[in-house]
Amino acid sequence: MTTIHRPAGIHLLADLHGIDASLLTDAGRIDALLREAALAAGARILHSHFHTFGPGMGITGVLLLAESHISIHTWPEVGFAAADIFMCGAAQPHLALEVIDAALAPNAREVKVVERGQL
Amino acid sequence: MTTIHRPAGIHLLADLHGIDASLLTDAGRIDALLREAALAAGARILHSHFHTFGPGMGITGVLLLAESHISIHTWPEVGFAAADIFMCGAAQPHLALEVIDAALAPNAREVKVVERGQL
Repeated sequence: MTTIHRPAGIHLLADLHGIDASLLTDAGRIDALLREAALAAGARILHSHFHTFGPGMGITGVLLLAESHISIHTWPEVGFAAADIFMCGAAQPHLALEVIDAALAPNAREVKVVERGQL
Repeated sequence: MTTIHRPAGIHLLADLHGIDASLLTDAGRIDALLREAALAAGARILHSHFHTFGPGMGITGVLLLAESHISIHTWPEVGFAAADIFMCGAAQPHLALEVIDAALAPNAREVKVVERGQL
């Protein structure tokens, strides 16, 4: 446990634009996508919860990980998703982002990489 | 709903160092603190979940909000907490951070402010 629960970690903030709206409204599908992404990164899933704002509307959800979390908030009306991937230890957050990016196929993206837990 | 669920938002990434370990191990207490923080910011709580890694160990948890989320991951063994506050719409994430900061009283902090959802 101590080997994966270290404070130093990488936090990816991904703003994904130009996504087909139909990919952003199904909580079950987004849940499955984030689980696939977490496993690709080598992370361990502790909990997941996804909320739907209504038919055809956005979803908001999170996977809590032993290594921190993956969250996503979607706005199908403007084809936008904000995804965060925060992982400590040996997990590889870039691999999770590749899975999400491949599935949502945004036509524009802005990704910030933030090192967390460094003094 | 549409007035608060807009893509443009502010994401605060707060690395909080030098916190008394006893403040970082009680999931119920951290849950209550994050709820207080969310309400101070004018956000609406949809869901919360907190995981404890074991007695005296860190916790990891999240509040899902109508406006996005607040997450926290703690490492009591090094007095560290990584908090994220992501809020869209009219909610005021800085007010949530003030509540968390006052309760945890870190002796050093690094806060990054990231604008999300802007092309």
